[in-house]
Amino acid sequence: MNKEQKLEIKRHSLAHILASAVLEMFPEAKFGVGPNIENGFYYDFDLPRTLIPEDLPILEKKMKEIIKKNLQFEKQVVDRDKAIELYKKAGQDYKVEILNDEAKDEEVSLYKTGEFVDLCKGPHIDSTGEIDFTSFKLNKIAGAYWRGDEKNKMLQRIYGIAFNNKKELKEYQTKMKEAAKRDHRKLGKELDLFCFSDLVGPGLPLFAPKGVVIIDELRKHIEKICAGYGFQKVMTPHLAKIDLYKLSGHADKFGKELFHVSSEQKHDFVMKPVQCPHQTQIYASKQRSYRDLPIRYMESEKQYRAEKSGEVGGLNRVYAITVEDGHSFCRVEQVKKEVKNMVEIIKDFYSAIGLWGNGNHWVSLSVRDYSHPEKYIGDPQDWDKCEKMLEDVAKEMKLDAKKIEGEAALYGPKLDFMFRDSMGKEIQIPTVQLDFATPKRFDLVYTNEKGKDEFVVMVHRAILGSYERFLALLIEHFAGAFPLWLSPVQVKILPVSSEKHIDYARKVNSLLLENNIRTEIDNSNESIGKKIREAEKQKIPYMLVVGEKETENNSVAVRQRGSRDIKTVGVKEFIEGVKKEIDEKK
Amino acid sequence: MNKEQKLEIKRHSLAHILASAVLEMFPEAKFGVGPNIENGFYYDFDLPRTLIPEDLPILEKKMKEIIKKNLQFEKQVVDRDKAIELYKKAGQDYKVEILNDEAKDEEVSLYKTGEFVDLCKGPHIDSTGEIDFTSFKLNKIAGAYWRGDEKNKMLQRIYGIAFNNKKELKEYQTKMKEAAKRDHRKLGKELDLFCFSDLVGPGLPLFAPKGVVIIDELRKHIEKICAGYGFQKVMTPHLAKIDLYKLSGHADKFGKELFHVSSEQKHDFVMKPVQCPHQTQIYASKQRSYRDLPIRYMESEKQYRAEKSGEVGGLNRVYAITVEDGHSFCRVEQVKKEVKNMVEIIKDFYSAIGLWGNGNHWVSLSVRDYSHPEKYIGDPQDWDKCEKMLEDVAKEMKLDAKKIEGEAALYGPKLDFMFRDSMGKEIQIPTVQLDFATPKRFDLVYTNEKGKDEFVVMVHRAILGSYERFLALLIEHFAGAFPLWLSPVQVKILPVSSEKHIDYARKVNSLLLENNIRTEIDNSNESIGKKIREAEKQKIPYMLVVGEKETENNSVAVRQRGSRDIKTVGVKEFIEGVKKEIDEKK
Repeated sequence: MNKEQKLEIKRHSLAHILASAVLEMFPEAKFGVGPNIENGFYYDFDLPRTLIPEDLPILEKKMKEIIKKNLQFEKQVVDRDKAIELYKKAGQDYKVEILNDEAKDEEVSLYKTGEFVDLCKGPHIDSTGEIDFTSFKLNKIAGAYWRGDEKNKMLQRIYGIAFNNKKELKEYQTKMKEAAKRDHRKLGKELDLFCFSDLVGPGLPLFAPKGVVIIDELRKHIEKICAGYGFQKVMTPHLAKIDLYKLSGHADKFGKELFHVSSEQKHDFVMKPVQCPHQTQIYASKQRSYRDLPIRYMESEKQYRAEKSGEVGGLNRVYAITVEDGHSFCRVEQVKKEVKNMVEIIKDFYSAIGLWGNGNHWVSLSVRDYSHPEKYIGDPQDWDKCEKMLEDVAKEMKLDAKKIEGEAALYGPKLDFMFRDSMGKEIQIPTVQLDFATPKRFDLVYTNEKGKDEFVVMVHRAILGSYERFLALLIEHFAGAFPLWLSPVQVKILPVSSEKHIDYARKVNSLLLENNIRTEIDNSNESIGKKIREAEKQKIPYMLVVGEKETENNSVAVRQRGSRDIKTVGVKEFIEGVKKEIDEKK
Repeated sequence: MNKEQKLEIKRHSLAHILASAVLEMFPEAKFGVGPNIENGFYYDFDLPRTLIPEDLPILEKKMKEIIKKNLQFEKQVVDRDKAIELYKKAGQDYKVEILNDEAKDEEVSLYKTGEFVDLCKGPHIDSTGEIDFTSFKLNKIAGAYWRGDEKNKMLQRIYGIAFNNKKELKEYQTKMKEAAKRDHRKLGKELDLFCFSDLVGPGLPLFAPKGVVIIDELRKHIEKICAGYGFQKVMTPHLAKIDLYKLSGHADKFGKELFHVSSEQKHDFVMKPVQCPHQTQIYASKQRSYRDLPIRYMESEKQYRAEKSGEVGGLNRVYAITVEDGHSFCRVEQVKKEVKNMVEIIKDFYSAIGLWGNGNHWVSLSVRDYSHPEKYIGDPQDWDKCEKMLEDVAKEMKLDAKKIEGEAALYGPKLDFMFRDSMGKEIQIPTVQLDFATPKRFDLVYTNEKGKDEFVVMVHRAILGSYERFLALLIEHFAGAFPLWLSPVQVKILPVSSEKHIDYARKVNSLLLENNIRTEIDNSNESIGKKIREAEKQKIPYMLVVGEKETENNSVAVRQRGSRDIKTVGVKEFIEGVKKEIDEKK
C-alpha cells in the first residue's frame, strides 16, 4: 500500500469518527454516506436542527477524544437481510435504502467504532489512535440532496480536510487562503471586471468595461498572431436549424445540453453548442479549387450550453461561452504545415503570458488505440499519414511530446497542450485536432488539378478556449495583477493636491491617451498615501505622483505596483518606456 | 385632386383593366383583390393554370385593346344581399367572402368595365381611353396567399407599374435596372461578402471573411470615435430571464417577436430583442456617485427577433441583428453635453461615408404632442428642460432641425437623422433619445453631493443601427465599389507573367501587408487584360501591374478602379499615398 492509499484510508476512517462524534452530539441523527475525497472527507447527516459554524469545534473536540481513546475499527460480516433489519430498528432509513437498492451480495460488512456502526466496504485503519489529531480539520457545512437528486431531502454535509501530519495540513491551509484571495469571483468584483444580475439570470455574466478591455486585448492579440498565418475572421449567428447538428453529430453528443429556441410564430431553432458546423457552411457556400487551399477561418463568438442550473457558477461554468475557435480546411499534404503554424501560434500566445517553457507545460501526442481500429472514423491510411505528420511536427519543433495511445478524438489524432498555473493547477486548453469525418458529413470538397472533387481535411485549433474560463484563469494566475498589456488601467495619475496639480495631471493624462495608454486620474480629496493604497488595491501597474516639483519639471514620480521605490523621470521618457513594455507584452 | 391622387386612381383603374383582360383570357378566373400600390398596381387571381412569363405580353396587349375601346367605368350601387347573390351565381367565392366579412353598409358599389364587374369603392377614371397606353407595363407574377394568410389558398398575383407618361415609366425602369445591379443580395454573393445555408436556416446570414472586414472596419471606426467621447465597451450575453423584459416593458412591446429558449434541463430564457436592459444591469451592479457620471457604455452585439418566416430576406430582414448600441447614464444637467457629443459622433461617422451635408440629410427634433401630455412618461419639468436642451443643441450646432410635434418617444424627446442614398432612397438610422422612464423602472440612481439618491437620465444613441442593414445600404449606395478604407481587398497585384514576375509581386505584397494594406496577388495563368477585368469585377480600388520594367525599377504600374489610366510610381510612394488615403477615409 502506497502513501497516497494510506492517506485515503485515513480520510475515510476520519469520516466514521466524525459520524461517531455527531452521534454523541445528536443521538437522533440519521446517517447518509461519508466517503473520502480529494484533500479530506465528508459525511451527510439528517439532523434535528441546522448546524451552525460553532458546532464544528465542538465536533472536532469530540473527534479528538475518540482518537485519544484509541478505539478499534471492528469489522463484522452479516447477512444483508439482517443488516436491513438492524438499520430498520435503528430508524436509519438512508442505510436501509442503500442496502435495498445497491447491496448486490448476500453478505455485507459493517464497521463499528465505539457506539457508531456503519455499513461500509472498508478498508479502515485498525484503531483511531493511529491518527495524528493535529493533521485534520473540519472546515465547511453545506447542504446536499440525498443521492444528489433535488427531488430528495436536503441533508447537512460536514466537510473535513486531512493530511499525513500537521505540517502538510498547514501548507494546504496556506495554499487555500492564497487561492481564496485569488478567487476570480472575489477579484472580479473588486476589480470591477464582470457582474451577474438576478434579472438576467445565473450563468450569464455581464462584462463591465474593465473586463472587456482584457478580453479585447486577448482577442486582438490572437487575431493578430493568427492573421500572420493566414486566418481570416468570419461571423456566424448563434442559431441554426437542428438539422445542422444532426448532420454534424452534435445533436446526439450534446442532447440535453442543447438550448431549444421557439417563438409564437412557430420558429424552431437550437443555439449553437460549438462553432465548427457554422464555419463549414461558409466553406461550402462556394466552389473551391486546390488553388484556394488552405482556407482558414477564425471567430470569437458565444456558444450556448444548457448546463444543469445547480452547476453554473463564477466564470468557469456558464451558459454563454465566448469561444475563440479556428479551422483550417486543407489537403492532406498541407496538414503538416498547418499543424506547425498552429503550434507556433499556441507557443507565441502562451509565451506572452509566461506559461510556455520553464518546465511549465507538456504536450500530449494523442493517437489511436491501435488494438481497436474500429472505434475511429476515417481511412486508416489517412490516419497513418496524419499521426506520422503530428509526430514529425512534435520532433521538428522539439515539443518533447508524450505519445498517448487511445487519446485521439473519434475523428482524428491531436496534439494537446497542458500548463501549470502559478498555484500549481494543471490546465488543459490549447489543442490541434485533425478531422477527417466532418468534411465527409458536410461534403466539403475542392477540385483538384485533374478537375476531380476531393475531400478536404479540417484542422481544428483552440488557443485560449473560452474567454470566460481564460479570464478566470488569468485573474487567479496573476492574483489580479495583470501584465501591463492586459491591465484595464495601465497608469493612474495621482495629483498631490486635487486643486493645484489637477491641470498638470490632465496634461499628462492627455499625453498618455494620445499614445494609446489606458489611464485614469484619481482626483479625490484623499491624501496621497490613501490614493496609492487605492491604486495598489486596484492592482494598477504604474502610479504617477504629480506635485509641485513634477509640474515645474514636466516630470512624473513613478511608483511601480508592489514596490515602495519612487523614481522621477521626464514624461516623454516614461511614455516611451511604457509603450515599449506594452509592445513587448512583458 | 392633386397629381399624385390622379395617378393613384389611374393605377387602380388599370388593376380593373388587368382583371378584365384576365377574364378574356381565362373565363373561369376567380377574382381576389386589386389595389393600387407604390409605382403601380396588382391583382390576385385564382386561375385554372399557373401563369408563365409569356402570358404578360398577351395580357398587356389585351389591356391596350380595352383602353383603345375607351370603355366606361360604370358605377352601380346595389343592395349588399343582391351583390352576394350575384357573385354567388358567378362562382366568385372570394368576392362573396369579402361581402360577408367586410361590407358593413346595406349598400355596396360595383364598377363595370366591359364584361368585368368588380366590387369596389372607387373612385375610378371615367373611361379607359384616358390612359396613355405607353405609360404602364406588367412586370411580375408572384404567389400570394388569399388575405395574406398561409392557411388559405395561394393565388396568383400579377404586378404592373404605371406612371403619368412613357417618359416617367422609362425613368422608373432605368432606375430599377440600376437598383437590380446594386442589389445587395446579388453583389453580396458576387463579392463573396456573406451567404446563407439551408442547414442553418433563413434569416441567419453567415458572413464570409470579406464581409467581416467591412463590418470590422465600421466597428473599429465607431469604437474609436466613441472612445474619444468617453464610451467604454461592455459585453453582455444573448439570453435573459423574461423578468428583465417585463420590467423594461419590452416583453409587452415585442410579444410574438420574442424568441423563447428552453432545454430539457428546464431552463427558461428569452433572447434579447434589444440591448438596453442588459446594459442597465451593469450600471446597477455598483453604487454610483455623481463623481462617476456620465457613465457611457457601447456594444456591438447580436439581438434576436422572431420576424415572420415569410418576411425575412437578404440582410434587411433577419432574425440575427448585429446592433451597435450605446447609452450614456448622466445627470439632467449633463444631458446637453452628452447629446452634443453624440451628434458630433453621428456627424463624424456619416461624413466619413459621404452622407452628411450637401443637402443629403435633414434632422427632426421630435418633441411631445403638447395637446396630449398624458401620453408621456416622466416629469413634465424634465421634459421641458430636455426639449429645450435638444433645441439649443440643434441651434448651436446649426442642424437646421425641423421641430415635429408628437414624434417624441413615450419616454423622452429625440433627435432623428435622415439621409438620402445615391439612389435617392431616404434612410432613417441615427438617433439620439432621452429616456426618463428606464432609470425609474430599473432603479438606476447615483448619490448626489448631499448623499441622496437621484435617478440618472439615460441617453440612447444609435449610429449605424444594425450592421446587416447598414452593409446592405453601403453595398447598394456604393454599388459594391466601397471607399478604400472599407474595401475588403484594397490592392490587387497583377504579375504580367505568373512565372517571371511572381517573386517581385510577392515582395510588393509583403511590403503592403507590413503597412496594414489588405492585398492579394492574382497569380493565375490568365492574360493581364483578363486579370484587370476580374479585379474590376471585384471592385478592387487599386490594381498594380508588375512586369519587367517594374521589377527592374522597384516600381508599380497603378490602375485605379474604373479608370483606364495607368501611372507608374515607386513602391514606397504608392504605399505612402494609399496609407494617407486610408487614414483620411476618403
